[in-house]
Amino acid sequence: MRRQPFQWHRSISSTTSTTSTTTSEPVIFSGIQPTGVPHLGNYLGALHQWVKLQNNAKPGAKLLFSIVDLHALTVPQDAAQLRKWRREAFATLLAVGLDPKRSTIFYQSAVPAHAELMWILSTVASMGYLSRMTQWKSKLQLPEDITLEHSEARAQLRLGLFSYPVLQAADILVHKATHVPVGEDQRQHLEFSRYTANSFNHLYGPIFPIPEALISPAKRVMSLKEPTAKMSKSHADERSRILLTDSPSEIHKKVKVALTDSEPTVSYDPARRPGVSNLIEILSHFEEVPCAALAAEYQSASLRTLKEHVASRIAHHLQEVRERYIEIMEDQSGYLDTVAQEGAEVAQANASQTMRQVRDVMGL
Amino acid sequence: MRRQPFQWHRSISSTTSTTSTTTSEPVIFSGIQPTGVPHLGNYLGALHQWVKLQNNAKPGAKLLFSIVDLHALTVPQDAAQLRKWRREAFATLLAVGLDPKRSTIFYQSAVPAHAELMWILSTVASMGYLSRMTQWKSKLQLPEDITLEHSEARAQLRLGLFSYPVLQAADILVHKATHVPVGEDQRQHLEFSRYTANSFNHLYGPIFPIPEALISPAKRVMSLKEPTAKMSKSHADERSRILLTDSPSEIHKKVKVALTDSEPTVSYDPARRPGVSNLIEILSHFEEVPCAALAAEYQSASLRTLKEHVASRIAHHLQEVRERYIEIMEDQSGYLDTVAQEGAEVAQANASQTMRQVRDVMGL
Repeated sequence: MRRQPFQWHRSISSTTSTTSTTTSEPVIFSGIQPTGVPHLGNYLGALHQWVKLQNNAKPGAKLLFSIVDLHALTVPQDAAQLRKWRREAFATLLAVGLDPKRSTIFYQSAVPAHAELMWILSTVASMGYLSRMTQWKSKLQLPEDITLEHSEARAQLRLGLFSYPVLQAADILVHKATHVPVGEDQRQHLEFSRYTANSFNHLYGPIFPIPEALISPAKRVMSLKEPTAKMSKSHADERSRILLTDSPSEIHKKVKVALTDSEPTVSYDPARRPGVSNLIEILSHFEEVPCAALAAEYQSASLRTLKEHVASRIAHHLQEVRERYIEIMEDQSGYLDTVAQEGAEVAQANASQTMRQVRDVMGL
Repeated sequence: MRRQPFQWHRSISSTTSTTSTTTSEPVIFSGIQPTGVPHLGNYLGALHQWVKLQNNAKPGAKLLFSIVDLHALTVPQDAAQLRKWRREAFATLLAVGLDPKRSTIFYQSAVPAHAELMWILSTVASMGYLSRMTQWKSKLQLPEDITLEHSEARAQLRLGLFSYPVLQAADILVHKATHVPVGEDQRQHLEFSRYTANSFNHLYGPIFPIPEALISPAKRVMSLKEPTAKMSKSHADERSRILLTDSPSEIHKKVKVALTDSEPTVSYDPARRPGVSNLIEILSHFEEVPCAALAAEYQSASLRTLKEHVASRIAHHLQEVRERYIEIMEDQSGYLDTVAQEGAEVAQANASQTMRQVRDVMGL
């Protein structure tokens, strides 16, 4: 069994400015699956963007970030490991700079309204639309053109893996989110949420804002060992990824042995030189300088020099994250549990307002 | 659109003695859909049996009865009507003699754990099994041999109508019910609940008792106007059914014009004389005398005499139910809401115990 749970949030997104279709204050929601300590790809693709969104948000904007542990259950999980991963994910959100005084951070399973709205939305969600979505096929390693017509597909498929886009819609809509930072590969799901919100509103009245995707044009971070594939928790070689908790020496070791090519100089050419180009892209994220400019800057440097600079830059940036992470995980005062409890209460209160309206318009 | 919501409980069940497979105290759970004031068929088939179960239950037995309003949403509902129907269903449960001091009576939608466990069970429920179940087909008036292979089926089908057997399993399992009074036509769903409980237990350990059906051998009550079909809320002619709130004169009028046949005497022969036989069966329920014996007793009576006796017996039995129903519905002190609130609290506390165990074994 492949142990690569569905990532609610998987690739790069950013605070591209968006005009909201609603006149009310923005509500930003996103989620991350608990799959242990996130790697550099998760960080640059999602978490770092969330922190930027938080720090640039207007005073009236609401921000909610969830460890979507109910989604993790769509593939088999070891209970002890899931318990550990949930905590690690929560500690990471705090460590990267999400501030529980500004953002609501919570475990999805601690807020029953998510599952409640999921059922409600089930009653409007089309089986035809769900069966055309692709994630359940890729999770089961089935071809994209397979449908529910194939008994092979039905035999392997559990309802949860098939229906989770509806839970995802509930995650977003129960908080009346107006903006959802997601990866490009999650656009299909956000589209389903928008469709579901519209279907509900059409039947019962204008309860839900139609959420907009915040999708970044930024590139994905690729594997250090297989730079044509994106950095992933599931790659067999641990040196293929940098975890947010790696020490500076671990970061230096991993970058040093990153797969590049035999050309001695530095240039930016993702198609022909994916390894070197990936390093330049990582540097570009941190320096906030375009890749072409960096390539020019390092033109006469050796790959070794580039790697050292990249490793130093990553290590420097992650040092604070790592220190906070260790501090939170070693804390004995119950800080994490308290923050999680408070986050759940705020999220439940927020969701309850929506559920009251939903119940009212449905006659419950 | 047919307005005949799925009835969680639809036909006859009784307290046939059952040997429990568990050594713990029995937990009895059943549900009824809010479709307005129940008719005589609902009463004799389900509600009257629930009251008997309650009155004969050992002191340690738990009893829970739910207005399953979340299930009602699997077909389109008018909000105002659903609101009214929920109250009417609740008042009826009290009027027929369920005692909120002994039985926990609650609206399903007031207990979030039902929807929470529904999602959890979704992650183990097989799409293949669900697609073979027949209720969604009959609700959409599709042939029984249709499958999800047919785009016609997928286009019409909403997820909720397809997945509600999982919610039904959650209804039962979240309370660790050991015994479930259901109609014969619900046996398939109880079997699915048993299968789901076994699947979960197999993966995560023995959390759920495997619930047993309490199915009565008693006959269905048939329509007074079309005695080959069962008495139903959806029949166009209101005289085809007796509501629990009908006045004695309404009952007499409806029975008087009940469809029988042109033979002048009374005999019990359901195949050849369904109308007369239905009246004898109704009388048999109330008198607790076998149909054959009643037929012998009324052998030389006219159909008119039989009808008068049947009407009197129904009216007499329902008089107390009707008076209590009117009293509850006219009450201005908030009695119904208070009972519903207390029931929801007890049910949520009961369900929360289960959910804590479920969360624990799953690593949430």
